[in-house]
Amino acid sequence: MSKKRRTAINPKRNENYPEWYQEVVKAADMAETSEVRGCMVIKPWGYSIWENIRNTLDERFKETGHQNAYFPLFIPKKFFEEEAEHVEGFAKECAVVTHSRLEDDGSGGLKPAGKLTEELIVRPTSETIIGASFSKWIDSYRDLPLLINQWANVVRWEMRTRLFLRTSEFLWQEGHTAHATKEEALEETLKMLDIYTDFAKDQLAIPVIKGKKTESEKFPGAVSTYTFEAMMQDKKALQAGTSHFLGLNFAKAANIKFQNDQGFEEYAWTTSWGVTTRLIGALIMAHSDDDGLVLPPKISPLHLVIVPIYRNTEEQKSVMKFIDELTVKFSKLRYDENKIRYKIDTREMRGGEKLWDWIKKGVPIRLEIGPRDIKNNSVFMGRRDKAPKDKSAVDVNDFSDNLISYLDDIQENIYQKALKFLNENTVDIDSKEKFFEFFTPQNQKELEIHGGFARSHWCGDPLCEENIKNKLKVTIRCIPLEKRQDKGKCVYCNKESDQRVIFAKSY
Amino acid sequence: MSKKRRTAINPKRNENYPEWYQEVVKAADMAETSEVRGCMVIKPWGYSIWENIRNTLDERFKETGHQNAYFPLFIPKKFFEEEAEHVEGFAKECAVVTHSRLEDDGSGGLKPAGKLTEELIVRPTSETIIGASFSKWIDSYRDLPLLINQWANVVRWEMRTRLFLRTSEFLWQEGHTAHATKEEALEETLKMLDIYTDFAKDQLAIPVIKGKKTESEKFPGAVSTYTFEAMMQDKKALQAGTSHFLGLNFAKAANIKFQNDQGFEEYAWTTSWGVTTRLIGALIMAHSDDDGLVLPPKISPLHLVIVPIYRNTEEQKSVMKFIDELTVKFSKLRYDENKIRYKIDTREMRGGEKLWDWIKKGVPIRLEIGPRDIKNNSVFMGRRDKAPKDKSAVDVNDFSDNLISYLDDIQENIYQKALKFLNENTVDIDSKEKFFEFFTPQNQKELEIHGGFARSHWCGDPLCEENIKNKLKVTIRCIPLEKRQDKGKCVYCNKESDQRVIFAKSY
Repeated sequence: MSKKRRTAINPKRNENYPEWYQEVVKAADMAETSEVRGCMVIKPWGYSIWENIRNTLDERFKETGHQNAYFPLFIPKKFFEEEAEHVEGFAKECAVVTHSRLEDDGSGGLKPAGKLTEELIVRPTSETIIGASFSKWIDSYRDLPLLINQWANVVRWEMRTRLFLRTSEFLWQEGHTAHATKEEALEETLKMLDIYTDFAKDQLAIPVIKGKKTESEKFPGAVSTYTFEAMMQDKKALQAGTSHFLGLNFAKAANIKFQNDQGFEEYAWTTSWGVTTRLIGALIMAHSDDDGLVLPPKISPLHLVIVPIYRNTEEQKSVMKFIDELTVKFSKLRYDENKIRYKIDTREMRGGEKLWDWIKKGVPIRLEIGPRDIKNNSVFMGRRDKAPKDKSAVDVNDFSDNLISYLDDIQENIYQKALKFLNENTVDIDSKEKFFEFFTPQNQKELEIHGGFARSHWCGDPLCEENIKNKLKVTIRCIPLEKRQDKGKCVYCNKESDQRVIFAKSY
Repeated sequence: MSKKRRTAINPKRNENYPEWYQEVVKAADMAETSEVRGCMVIKPWGYSIWENIRNTLDERFKETGHQNAYFPLFIPKKFFEEEAEHVEGFAKECAVVTHSRLEDDGSGGLKPAGKLTEELIVRPTSETIIGASFSKWIDSYRDLPLLINQWANVVRWEMRTRLFLRTSEFLWQEGHTAHATKEEALEETLKMLDIYTDFAKDQLAIPVIKGKKTESEKFPGAVSTYTFEAMMQDKKALQAGTSHFLGLNFAKAANIKFQNDQGFEEYAWTTSWGVTTRLIGALIMAHSDDDGLVLPPKISPLHLVIVPIYRNTEEQKSVMKFIDELTVKFSKLRYDENKIRYKIDTREMRGGEKLWDWIKKGVPIRLEIGPRDIKNNSVFMGRRDKAPKDKSAVDVNDFSDNLISYLDDIQENIYQKALKFLNENTVDIDSKEKFFEFFTPQNQKELEIHGGFARSHWCGDPLCEENIKNKLKVTIRCIPLEKRQDKGKCVYCNKESDQRVIFAKSY
């Protein structure tokens, strides 16, 4: 057998998946834990990915008529007392502000003072406080639809946290809309789901399954929750984002009424939808390999990095001149309507070390340029969708001419690889025995990586759902929107079923 | 005397300035108070201005080598106990989180539960928590300079709040940098001050005075604070932003050390700098008039608005066709590297009502287009830098050809008007009597609008500064960076002085 290559990330995916994840985040210098329980520090490389996610989504929201606004960080406790079902979901894990200052505690420290008459909750989501505004802003059918989005931080007091995937504070966007009719609100809910899934596919190169959540998995207070679920490389599902049809629930709680075109008063139909910094976790786990992060070009902070190679000042001069001439050509190019994002890495470090840095950070294209390349009028190119040593010399003019198609090719390769993985690990399972076997690790090695998406029949009984959850830690990720004409029997209780649903373990 | 025109904002500036301000904000639909004490809701028109401010500044920060990152919302109480001087400034007004959930209080309500072992403070500013990260990130001189910026929300428990000007929660950016030498850190402090003042001038059309704060007015914990002060139309000063040279103070508190190129350990020199949503308050008060908001084109959410005028479906068709042809021409134009931001107002409302809406919102150019205009192949243009009725027909081709120069002209006019106001109300005052007279309203009418910037001598004694503050509510806004060779006597105590400083009442 061939000698195994030492990889940059230790442990490898199939050795210890959760640790591999933490090491990829660390090696790419994306984020770290902080001294505040459960809160992360998002470092520049990670934050830059978030900025790209935000900017692209924001453009799509605005193109579809949404406007950004900003609402208070704090929610008065009474708002939590008004919408019982909603609160039930959030009251168990929230940051409560009770005081408005600190004062000397008499022994050199500080103690809370200025007790508030009403406690404030740091927003876990803003339905209630935005509802209070909507109720003031909406008078007539002419004010509808009202299409608002907010980019903000929210806090949920999570017990077990993991960088990007589950943190006490995270960044997100939350869309909140109000409509005159049920049909319009439902249309909005599904339109936003489509915007998300197109974004996931086109930008993040992540294939997803769109569907509806079951009653027990839906958002507290929603009539129905739509989700898009991605498969991570440990074959677990990750809920990448949700879009909720809220019916009249929040309108009734917040008194959001309008006068219709007949002059009668009605409650408005509302929706809400959001994605979070968790998408970065999805991005990491969908594509990265044992050498670190792999970034689709469209979302990468850098499209390419150039590492100059030289041994003396004279060589340095000619190399830098050659690079300058090359980058002038880039400046005219546009990839996905953006300028080419590149960096010339002039740090005081060995070239090989730099290259490994950029491999671990997932940059799509690496160029090495030294005296030999100048002589051949070429660049030495490595691509992140290929093995680290799989590099080749490319004529410098050909390189500029083909840069956009290289990037397109890398983007497509990354997507196809993820799609293949999703398809290979999504299987129809029709017997209870096979179902249990599918979700049970067969040996120690499979402990963290096993299973996949089981497309199985479910009778619709929450009890079957609960039993499966309790026995296997497997949940119904969604009832896919894309339905097959396929009657069968519930994989748990064997009763009649006319729908297959997606079962999986999940984040 | 001519009959006075009824204006859109009631009261007018010279009738009741503070109320005029609130009415302008309301009429432009920019923001409103919320049910949370002191926290505002920033509505789409106001938030869009903030987005333009953010995007432009962000670009300038990145061009000068800064990277964005994100740090926790919460700061552990112990960090507040470590940097005494800094904390003294913030402990008196901060939101303290003491519990991590809500539970049933037994009488249908909710009460805080899950008491935290250490209280958390909602960040009033992030020096301490970012310092903790810097101390981990910096090892060697090769890691310096470290140039980080954060866009975030912060909370200061203000007692008296006013939309945009002073709110308990506000949005801002905070730059935090660390350097190997004092010189570099000082250079950074002043470089960022220049970026701010150029931005204020070029984008916001606000002329400002750059200077240093006195010891008593500087940021808690800073060695020196630089500020830029703008004059509002009530002749009061508004501190529009600050840039702090922190010396080694925070490095010592947070243990930010590096190994220098000689192999010895040193503390790093740090800076911080920020501007907030308060800039929107400055923008409003610098330019608006008795008809509402006046927006410089570069920062306005819309450059122009088009109001179609028609009486029947046939007219509507030809008007909309004419407008479509016109806007096709816009799509190729670039103003300040951006696409032309325009809106065709097709709401079900009378044309005149729409036009007043856009006047109150401050849009630079309004076009009315009806059948008569089509016949003449012209557009009927109103400019926000001119009187509402001062409108004129412009040939439609000329309009497109000149659109960019119209916008440039409006931007310049707005700036020149503000500059003239600043210059006219900035005066050298050399006697105590005149100084007191200058800052004392002479009658009821002058109660809210009087004074200005007094450029007067100050001996440097904090006692003179304090006496003036106590007697007149006038503070030293700054010691201007631009110094005149001009010796004189302290306007308060008559002692020798070699510097004039800017005295003013302020927000």
